[in-house]
Amino acid sequence: MAKVLTSREENYAQWYNDLVLKSGLAENSAVRGCMVIKPYGYAIWEKMRDELDRMFKATGHENAYFPLFIPKSFFSREAEHVEGFAKECAVVTHYRLKHDEAGGGITVDPEAKLEEELIIRPTSETIIWNSYKNWIQSYRDLPILINQWANVVRWEMRTRLFLRTAEFLWQEGHTAHATREEAVEEAMRMMGIYAEFTENFLGIPVITGTKTESEKFAGAVETFTLEALMQDGKALQAGTSHFLGQNFARAFDVQFTNREGKLDYVWATSWGMTTRMIGALIMAHSDNNGLVLPPKVAPIQVVIVPIFKGADEYPPIAEKAERIKKELADAGISVKFDDRDTHKPGWKFAEYELKGVPLRIALGPRDIAQGTLELARRDTLEKQVVPAEGIAARIASLLQEIQENIYRRALKFREENTHRVENWEELLDVLERRGGFALAHWDGTSESEERIRETKATIRCLPLNGEKETGKCVVSGKPSGRRVVIAKAY
Amino acid sequence: MAKVLTSREENYAQWYNDLVLKSGLAENSAVRGCMVIKPYGYAIWEKMRDELDRMFKATGHENAYFPLFIPKSFFSREAEHVEGFAKECAVVTHYRLKHDEAGGGITVDPEAKLEEELIIRPTSETIIWNSYKNWIQSYRDLPILINQWANVVRWEMRTRLFLRTAEFLWQEGHTAHATREEAVEEAMRMMGIYAEFTENFLGIPVITGTKTESEKFAGAVETFTLEALMQDGKALQAGTSHFLGQNFARAFDVQFTNREGKLDYVWATSWGMTTRMIGALIMAHSDNNGLVLPPKVAPIQVVIVPIFKGADEYPPIAEKAERIKKELADAGISVKFDDRDTHKPGWKFAEYELKGVPLRIALGPRDIAQGTLELARRDTLEKQVVPAEGIAARIASLLQEIQENIYRRALKFREENTHRVENWEELLDVLERRGGFALAHWDGTSESEERIRETKATIRCLPLNGEKETGKCVVSGKPSGRRVVIAKAY
Repeated sequence: MAKVLTSREENYAQWYNDLVLKSGLAENSAVRGCMVIKPYGYAIWEKMRDELDRMFKATGHENAYFPLFIPKSFFSREAEHVEGFAKECAVVTHYRLKHDEAGGGITVDPEAKLEEELIIRPTSETIIWNSYKNWIQSYRDLPILINQWANVVRWEMRTRLFLRTAEFLWQEGHTAHATREEAVEEAMRMMGIYAEFTENFLGIPVITGTKTESEKFAGAVETFTLEALMQDGKALQAGTSHFLGQNFARAFDVQFTNREGKLDYVWATSWGMTTRMIGALIMAHSDNNGLVLPPKVAPIQVVIVPIFKGADEYPPIAEKAERIKKELADAGISVKFDDRDTHKPGWKFAEYELKGVPLRIALGPRDIAQGTLELARRDTLEKQVVPAEGIAARIASLLQEIQENIYRRALKFREENTHRVENWEELLDVLERRGGFALAHWDGTSESEERIRETKATIRCLPLNGEKETGKCVVSGKPSGRRVVIAKAY
Repeated sequence: MAKVLTSREENYAQWYNDLVLKSGLAENSAVRGCMVIKPYGYAIWEKMRDELDRMFKATGHENAYFPLFIPKSFFSREAEHVEGFAKECAVVTHYRLKHDEAGGGITVDPEAKLEEELIIRPTSETIIWNSYKNWIQSYRDLPILINQWANVVRWEMRTRLFLRTAEFLWQEGHTAHATREEAVEEAMRMMGIYAEFTENFLGIPVITGTKTESEKFAGAVETFTLEALMQDGKALQAGTSHFLGQNFARAFDVQFTNREGKLDYVWATSWGMTTRMIGALIMAHSDNNGLVLPPKVAPIQVVIVPIFKGADEYPPIAEKAERIKKELADAGISVKFDDRDTHKPGWKFAEYELKGVPLRIALGPRDIAQGTLELARRDTLEKQVVPAEGIAARIASLLQEIQENIYRRALKFREENTHRVENWEELLDVLERRGGFALAHWDGTSESEERIRETKATIRCLPLNGEKETGKCVVSGKPSGRRVVIAKAY
């Protein structure tokens, strides 16, 4: 197979786009900014969704479904919220088409104009809190721990497959609590679940922290974030969890009788993770040969490719392959036997490297004679010949090792690309030349933050596990009690 | 607990609405025609979705995701299709809001008007076939067997929870084939899967058949349907599978090189099942005490309610309940132990009857002493005292028996309410007084069909397994070779 990808070194953005298209994950649709998630990409999303869903349910959350549409007036209720989303809203104004008597074809029926326009949800706090109002009277109705799997729309002018699309898929958790403490605890718990998922399942190390005032979610009191580092040295926000205080309860007048018998507003959180994480998965691990998928999220974990010349060599290989396939499937490993005779082994090898299948088994006549098989790891591209005997156990442990190796490698990359900087010049050196995370002192003022933003970088977060350390702000020279993470970001 | 439902006999429509609300399945939202699917209702949908998804994958289908939006111009391409859906389309015309400088609040920004309006998908044939165009060159690219889980919008003026809502959730399969035969086979296979699912999983017997010319899907050559009978004697269409011929391939110019090396248009099917089936589930089985859920679709299959007077009686009961709970859970049965001390047992009994939990275990001091427990079946309301020993096996077999009994009961109801009618008067007698399915001869003309429609009933289907039988059309008296199913319908 000919080289199908632009190399990372040549053009990282082009490499990414090539990879998404050529590996069959997704493509652009005829609708501006909206993508088609193809079966291979959707299979990855299903794995991510199932794992997150399991984690949500294990922590007491239930799924529900709220309307796609939000009445325009709901939007204005929470002032910061509308400010944050008004400029990227798709608006439904009519509910009928009719024949275009003048021009032919069809046209919007002007008589079917809605009294109040409907916004396609960019996020569902407003429609959900309008429902919660009817569900909550007393502390006995709390907490409400609900999650929703849905599509949302945020109109974007410059889009990129998975990373920034007008429509995307996500989950959004919306919880209601009787006390401030409980809501903060919930927001932090979900940030913890996201971190566990991103590190253990997707193999991407994250720094958890809080957003600055100017970077937090529109309507939140505090936004917890997970920041991951991509191979081009740019940061990617991997998920956010918001403590919303009583902002939405006030906006939608959701009060409850507390244990002391007094009326109070309900405390809230919301938290979301999106199909964008597929983009993160690609950019964190893949190489110039194609995707590198951690085994836990790989739709196909093992592929078996038969190697043979004459037609008489094939039957014993096929028989052996089917036996191995069954053995692996019985052990819960997802395996594919590629028995197509329309493609040569070399073509198939390149194809499965492109698709990031973690392990490849090649099986030829000599293997049949000697009771062996050839194993190739996608992460290291190493090959070894091993006994066919006991292959399921060997592969199970190898998949675990690959999962861990991919994480270790990403962690090493992040450590090598995280730089403590002590002044403005050092900061610029990281942002403009070296790339990666800069750990810098910041005086906490929006003036200094604005100055940083002029470099096109942002304060990604105030790390939660950051040590206390006195120093001087890299912008103002004023005293600072801790370092923050600064980087250019997706 | 006081009687919370209007009885079926008093007002069937009100009974249904009460039941959906009071059992916590769903409620109306602030958006006209859109419902909120609450956690208990959504848990039922998850069970249905998982089972269907398993069946689709077992037959070689993969999931993917296509855009929510369809450019208006795509819609006009297939003439019958646009005719069928134009009058119920939600239309996006703008992509931004702005501050309303005159009136305060926010308003649609007139400068952010789309060049071409976007339709919220009422079904996705057009956007999907526009993509398939780029995926298909040769017979080697076929078949494409794709399914999508999504929300769709069809603007409805008169809505009812689950049965008819402006937005609903569904799955839509869209397949592409090299031959007519293969596409017809696929459409029939999926009708078969729907029938198997509806009968074995939801416990609702169905009649499979084809739609008449005037009742088929807008753009289909043939529509296969499943017709179920509700307890009020009205029919409900439980799913449809369409053979689309080459209509969409022609509309979107999707040609391929066939095995003979000639260009031909691709053959298509589409098939869908929706959240409406939750409405069918409710109306087919439930009674004046509440929901009756077949065990396979019940979010909670068994509930354990402790019965005790003094606080000293409770600990051994709780201990036993936890042991039973674990035993059942280990056997793959979903079980809840309701240990709330805020509600009395009688209240809980009524609550779980309302929610349709198939089996209830009551556990009191005498049961602890005697090693027994009381089992109550939701379908028959029968109670029996049984040994606690070996309870998991007993319950597993009882759940199976309940599943089958619910189906048998629905089948018996349908048989008792299916009437062979020989003339117009007998047909009217069924449609206007007795209710149920009328099996009648029809001459196959649209004139006779129109006459039937004037009674507010429709030809539900031409049954696939209907015996050949000569007779006279109940409308015209002309000769007919088979009976069709006629009923009023949801």
